[in-house]
Amino acid sequence: MERITARYYIETPFEVERAAAVLAGEQSSGTFVAVPGETEELKQRFAARIETINHLETVSEPAIPGAKASSGKYNRAEVEVSWSVENFGYNLPAMVSTLQGNLYEITQFTGLKLMDLEVPPSFGDHFKGPRFGIAGCRKLTGVQDRPLIGTIIKPSIGLTPQQTADMVKVLAEAGIDFIKDDELLVSSANSSFEERLEAVMRVINIHADKTGKRVMYAINISDEVDTMLRRYEKVVASGNTCAMVSINSVGLSGVKKVCDQGELAIHGHRNGWGMLNRHPLLGIEFPAYQKIWRLAGVDQLHVNGIQNKFWESDDSVVRSIEACLKPMLGGYSILPVVSSGQWGGQAPETYRRTQTTDLLYMAGGGIMAHPDGPAGGVVALNQAWEAAVAGLSVEAAAQRYPEFGNSVKKFGSN
Amino acid sequence: MERITARYYIETPFEVERAAAVLAGEQSSGTFVAVPGETEELKQRFAARIETINHLETVSEPAIPGAKASSGKYNRAEVEVSWSVENFGYNLPAMVSTLQGNLYEITQFTGLKLMDLEVPPSFGDHFKGPRFGIAGCRKLTGVQDRPLIGTIIKPSIGLTPQQTADMVKVLAEAGIDFIKDDELLVSSANSSFEERLEAVMRVINIHADKTGKRVMYAINISDEVDTMLRRYEKVVASGNTCAMVSINSVGLSGVKKVCDQGELAIHGHRNGWGMLNRHPLLGIEFPAYQKIWRLAGVDQLHVNGIQNKFWESDDSVVRSIEACLKPMLGGYSILPVVSSGQWGGQAPETYRRTQTTDLLYMAGGGIMAHPDGPAGGVVALNQAWEAAVAGLSVEAAAQRYPEFGNSVKKFGSN
Repeated sequence: MERITARYYIETPFEVERAAAVLAGEQSSGTFVAVPGETEELKQRFAARIETINHLETVSEPAIPGAKASSGKYNRAEVEVSWSVENFGYNLPAMVSTLQGNLYEITQFTGLKLMDLEVPPSFGDHFKGPRFGIAGCRKLTGVQDRPLIGTIIKPSIGLTPQQTADMVKVLAEAGIDFIKDDELLVSSANSSFEERLEAVMRVINIHADKTGKRVMYAINISDEVDTMLRRYEKVVASGNTCAMVSINSVGLSGVKKVCDQGELAIHGHRNGWGMLNRHPLLGIEFPAYQKIWRLAGVDQLHVNGIQNKFWESDDSVVRSIEACLKPMLGGYSILPVVSSGQWGGQAPETYRRTQTTDLLYMAGGGIMAHPDGPAGGVVALNQAWEAAVAGLSVEAAAQRYPEFGNSVKKFGSN
Repeated sequence: MERITARYYIETPFEVERAAAVLAGEQSSGTFVAVPGETEELKQRFAARIETINHLETVSEPAIPGAKASSGKYNRAEVEVSWSVENFGYNLPAMVSTLQGNLYEITQFTGLKLMDLEVPPSFGDHFKGPRFGIAGCRKLTGVQDRPLIGTIIKPSIGLTPQQTADMVKVLAEAGIDFIKDDELLVSSANSSFEERLEAVMRVINIHADKTGKRVMYAINISDEVDTMLRRYEKVVASGNTCAMVSINSVGLSGVKKVCDQGELAIHGHRNGWGMLNRHPLLGIEFPAYQKIWRLAGVDQLHVNGIQNKFWESDDSVVRSIEACLKPMLGGYSILPVVSSGQWGGQAPETYRRTQTTDLLYMAGGGIMAHPDGPAGGVVALNQAWEAAVAGLSVEAAAQRYPEFGNSVKKFGSN
């Protein structure tokens, strides 16, 4: 029988083997006293199985509150646990409850993080995954052989639909590939979803008719299920190719329902992610996280960016990009979305470390506040990527390309 | 204009005032360079506002990774921030993205936890909240003036529908009020949802016809939206009064869609909660968390239990019960679900500290493995609560009540 495997980074004041057995018990048949009906046969069929244990360092302070070590020592390890597909079938919320449920409450752990997970081939028959992915998003935007260049409408909240549309017009004429709402804006008192969609799509449709280039607009539909589906239909009818959802806030079932409509590329915003990931020994790592959302069908997923304005390290960002680009179930392509404090100066390092242009590369102020105006900003970002692929340093690129050179002058000291 | 207020416990290597300003900026208009269109007027209308700052202790080690303190000092504080309802209207996922979104990524914090939130009265006009709550669940089960007594079918996974139904028969005849699936079981290879519902409800319906007492069965419907709704209809048609959802795994939009059907009491299982809460300076505290789910319409919510088998302290459990029992928007009643290692011995302390019987009190092995059989287990739990309300100690109750006395002998040393 096929099995789902999860890899955890754990810390425990007990023997690692014993703590892992508690986890496996709690997440399959376990209870605190023996009860009738719990036969050896059903235990074996449905029991979680500890596959491997890899002992790591020992520390003297617990990472998070839990049982106290009488020895004063806390043991760390990587532990692989597996479950039969028979336990929950093809049910993503049930899979999450099994891999990421009550186990975080177990007192025997003073640290527990889900590092990665593996699903068996039959998942590929049951989950369609991203309908567009990298190739689909490239086709929808007409962009090949370089990253999609995108931006976020700023200020995050406060502009009227007409102000937003005016900004979109400037950006479209500047040659941008992709524009998104901020995650804080869905429908505000001065920018209703419907009016914003209409105003922005009027601009995008006219620009597409005139130039043949259709800007992808990730308009934020995040809300209750029925409202999202109503908005989704309006987005399709408007001629737009994309919708955005705040995946953690909407949740797995709601996001999957949106993805299952299949007519729009779904931009997955991961706001709230820091809560799930920022502690080194609590929560979930991105390689596991992105697989769940690929199974749900998200086409584009945020990965932060090199030298970002947030807390995350470059190493972690690089790992996230690599995780997205690794095929899953023979495909399930998802486009990594690079953002946060990006202005093009990070392109050489991003390319050096990831060797890919399969990215949606987003800059906010880096475009809108470019000394030569937004058009200069978009040109500068494309130059940055041309230079990156050619192996130029930021300094060499600044000398070769005037617009990128102006970016370096304005943003380079940030 | 009405405002939504959030209270955060923060830690920062910078001046608290400066870090709070970064949070307020990031979660409303903010970007890293000034852009056209960002007028003072719109800033004031949509800007997050810092309401109060309460300085707390200073520590020398950061709680979670973030910016380094050049002074070697990390300042802690409680900070209240507010947003106008104009920013996101009556959209729970957008509220969550605003209160719990990218702010967890801000490098200026080395700790950030959402402690509580307040929504304005107009939320009461837009969200129906729990359709049943405490009074509704009491009416559905016919239980007044004492906690509802419940149990979880164990082993968590592995029993066939017929074995489950046989166990339900024993429990119903023992006088139980409430029975739930384990969160790990939705539809397994040997217990499909439909067959289990049918087998269990046959028992429950016969028992109700015979005795007038209808056991509430929280059958786990957690899955994709359409599947949950299909199952929900089957649950209603079966004569059952309740369905269970794993709220974190299904997510906010999916859970609200289920609650909005309005025909069943919704049992909210919080598995995964430890990931959101276990670190003292990361994530969300229960007083904030339970309000979000009350707005979504959940009728019953897990709060762990006194002297539980997990990591959580009794103080935290007491605070959670109190949070659930505090009226919200003049009502929004939600029934706290006490569980984890409970066998009745914790009833006196639970009552002493909370002074309430408005609880769903669940014991697993404490009922099924009772020396006098499950009927003795249910009797013992009712005795435990009678004794608790009368102010008896565990020892005094054990002397007065034979079945509870037998519980103490078997489980008291655990």
